[in-house]
Parts: sequence; C-alpha cells; structure tokens
Amino acid sequence: MIAEVLTIGDELLTGNTIDSNSAYIAQRLTERGYWVRRITTVGDDVGEIMSVIREILNRKPSVLVISGGLGPTHDDVTMLAVAKALGRDLVLCEDCLERIKQFYEELHRNGLIDDPTLNEARKKMAYLPEGATPLENTEGAAPGAYIEYEGVKIFVLPGMPREMKAMLEREVLPRIGERKFIQKKFLAEITDESKLAPILNEAIERFRVKIHSSPKGFGKFIGIIIFAEDEAKVKEVVEFMEGKGIRFMEGW
Amino acid sequence: MIAEVLTIGDELLTGNTIDSNSAYIAQRLTERGYWVRRITTVGDDVGEIMSVIREILNRKPSVLVISGGLGPTHDDVTMLAVAKALGRDLVLCEDCLERIKQFYEELHRNGLIDDPTLNEARKKMAYLPEGATPLENTEGAAPGAYIEYEGVKIFVLPGMPREMKAMLEREVLPRIGERKFIQKKFLAEITDESKLAPILNEAIERFRVKIHSSPKGFGKFIGIIIFAEDEAKVKEVVEFMEGKGIRFMEGW
Repeated sequence: MIAEVLTIGDELLTGNTIDSNSAYIAQRLTERGYWVRRITTVGDDVGEIMSVIREILNRKPSVLVISGGLGPTHDDVTMLAVAKALGRDLVLCEDCLERIKQFYEELHRNGLIDDPTLNEARKKMAYLPEGATPLENTEGAAPGAYIEYEGVKIFVLPGMPREMKAMLEREVLPRIGERKFIQKKFLAEITDESKLAPILNEAIERFRVKIHSSPKGFGKFIGIIIFAEDEAKVKEVVEFMEGKGIRFMEGW
Repeated sequence: MIAEVLTIGDELLTGNTIDSNSAYIAQRLTERGYWVRRITTVGDDVGEIMSVIREILNRKPSVLVISGGLGPTHDDVTMLAVAKALGRDLVLCEDCLERIKQFYEELHRNGLIDDPTLNEARKKMAYLPEGATPLENTEGAAPGAYIEYEGVKIFVLPGMPREMKAMLEREVLPRIGERKFIQKKFLAEITDESKLAPILNEAIERFRVKIHSSPKGFGKFIGIIIFAEDEAKVKEVVEFMEGKGIRFMEGW
C-alpha cells in the first residue's frame, strides 16, 4: 500500500515555513500500514501543481494526500489545479457554500471580522472538482475534497495545521482502511553494522513487519524502529533478533 | 535562476523526523536570488533516488541541492544513487579517505569511539561520483560532492543539520553567485484582497523584486514578503504600494 504526500505553498519554498504537515500526514499514514514513497512540495502555481499531480498519478499510489492552498486569496489555487489535472470542471458545492456562509456569520458575531458578506473570494472556496465528496473543515472555512480517480484515493486538505489535522483524523483516516500499525523505537548495540542487515531482512520476511534502521552516535548504536500490528508482534520480533545476538535497549 | 532541493531519508517518510533541512536550504537559496521551484523527499532507496534525480535534471534547474544519506551504514546510498543517475562510477577520493581516517582517530583520542579502524563502512564514505569535487565536512566524517552536469550545479550534502548547514555555508553558497536578496515581512491592511493582486504584479515588474502574499487572520490582513537586493529597494516598493492605497505595518 503506497502513499504519496503533496504539500503546496510558496512559503514552504522560500523557507519561511518549515513543512511540519507532511511529517504529520506521513506518520499517520505509516501507522495505518502505508508506505509513503515520496513527499513533494510545490508553490502556489496552477501549472506546477497540475504537473506534479499528473506525475504522482502516473506512479499509481493507493492514496495521495494534498495539503495547502484552499483559502480565499488569489494565490490559493489548489482546487483549480486539482480539477485541471484530472480534466474536470470546478463546480459549486451548495452545502459547502452554506457552511462557509455560517462560518463567516459566526466569526462576525464573535467580533473577529467586520463584514460577514460572502464576497467572491469567500465563495471561491465552495467550488470543488466535479464528482468530489466535500470534506468537512471543523476548524476553518474551506472544505476539503475526496476524489477517487483511476484507483487512487485523492484527499485535498487545507494547509493550516490545525485544520489539516482535524480533517485528516475525521475525514481521511476512516476512508483508508482499518489496519493499524504501532511503532516502537529501540537502540541496538552493535559494533559491526554489516551483520545487522541480514537479520533485519529475515525478521521483515518472517513476521511481515516493517523495520527501519539508522545510525545513532558514531557507529556504536543503531536506532531501530519496528512497525507492527501490536505490542505482542513487536515483542516477537525483538526476541527473534535477540536470539541472533542483537542487544536491544528501549529508547532512541 | 531556478533551484530544486532533494532530501533523502526513510525517517522523513515515516514522519519520525520533520524535514527542517529543506526549509533551511530553500531560505538560503532564496536569499541568493534563486527561485526554489520544488522540494522532493524520497527514502534511502537507490532506484527511487535515481529516478527522482533524473526527473529533476530533465527540468534543468540551475542548482540542485541534495541532502541526506552520506553516512557509513547500509542504508546510506545517496552517493551511489547520484553516480548511477549520472551514468558515472563511484571512485575513491584519496584525500577524503585521509580526512575520514583523521576524523575517526580524533574521535578515538577523545574517547568517543572504541575503535578508530577504517572498516569498510567508514571507507565507503570516501567514494564519490567520478569527476566530483569533494566538499569538506567540518562537522562530521562524510564529505559532500559538487558536480556540474549538463549545466546543472549539483551539490550533495549530509543529512545531519549541523553538518549540512556548515557545508552549505562554506562550500555551496560561494559557488552559486554573489547576488544577495534580503526579505522583509509586512502586514497589509486590506478589505478587498482582489484589489491587491494587480498592484503586486505592477510592483514586481517595475522594481524587479519578488513578492509573496498570504492571508493572515481571517482576511483582514495580508502578509506580504518583499525579496529585494537591499533595504533601499524594499523602501521603494513599499512607498510605491502605499501610493496605491495599501497600508503597511511592519511585522507578520
């Protein structure tokens, strides 16, 4: 089960914002048993977003999560670019428009904005690619979108972390399967790292888990992350590897 | 002047590490007047790294900065993948080997490692793609590499932020030109954001600067970042836009 993540925003490409969204999305997908193969970041540019979406769809992942560029301003062009990449029109989602109207009226009642009117910029957010299922934004104005396209589940989420996270939990994760992975981190004490690789590979095949390893310190320790369905499975893997002479410490 | 950034590491794709390197690299490139068009992250996989490097080279950026996967462990495969993507062999850099030897001897003298021997894993780091210029790592063992390939300046840097930053400053920035941009952030008070876009575009053309805008709060303010060669140029741009009725506040 392969997934890809696409984050969108000029502020990411100038280094003004560190892209923590992609790590969050990748972590949640990994916990569901997906292998995130690639994360891509592009700016708020219709042509560039279209190109990268087409490239990703050609690689046929099971899931594509897109985040950023759904707001009311002129540089929020993600929905338009998604529609164009899929050869679809943008169409008005009446329910979304009503929801956006209520959202701004509530902001106005709470004194956060001067004018609750649905101007063009705010209305723009109610347009989704034809055939998309709207995803509810409990934390902001712009709805997301869910589109199945040639076997790829495409989710389009806002870029504001609070809005993105809420939508990911409520609207995305329930649609991508029930399988859950936990991850446990260990330090393995080892002097010859080349001996570790075959043992890791044997454990991966035997227990059908995912294991990552990376050096810690100056080669005395190897950080090991075991991704498995439950704690019992992690324990089995650890015992198997200890039987092969690897010494584990919990921690990282 | 287009640039791309490629970060490499399984830990980025599982969300265990937030990729702050790409933001740092993008910021420094932006300050030098480059437009970072795309940031890509892939795992420690030779085939995947090769594919993405070839895709990037086909887009013909002026500069490609790669970070991650230069260490001594089995999953550090970046140099091999770079060599393969360019159709070159990996060849031993004798100076690099000597430098690595000294590095581990010093760690040993300082009691940080038990064994200073240049084993295969450590020697591996001294192999660079044929024709590459080694880049000095003042903070760690693995050298980086600089390769000019069909008009693209390719820099291969370590993934440890401390090592990457030092190498970027000392070895990369001096090789990519003297032009420097500063960036200043402002809040523009505006009620109708659609009026802003044509003014921004006029300023960009007239003063040959870069300007980004993004919404702040709920549409009352627009965050504006002006990238220009110096403070005087920023002031000119601000005065021009104020003359068109935009009210600026410093801050963000």
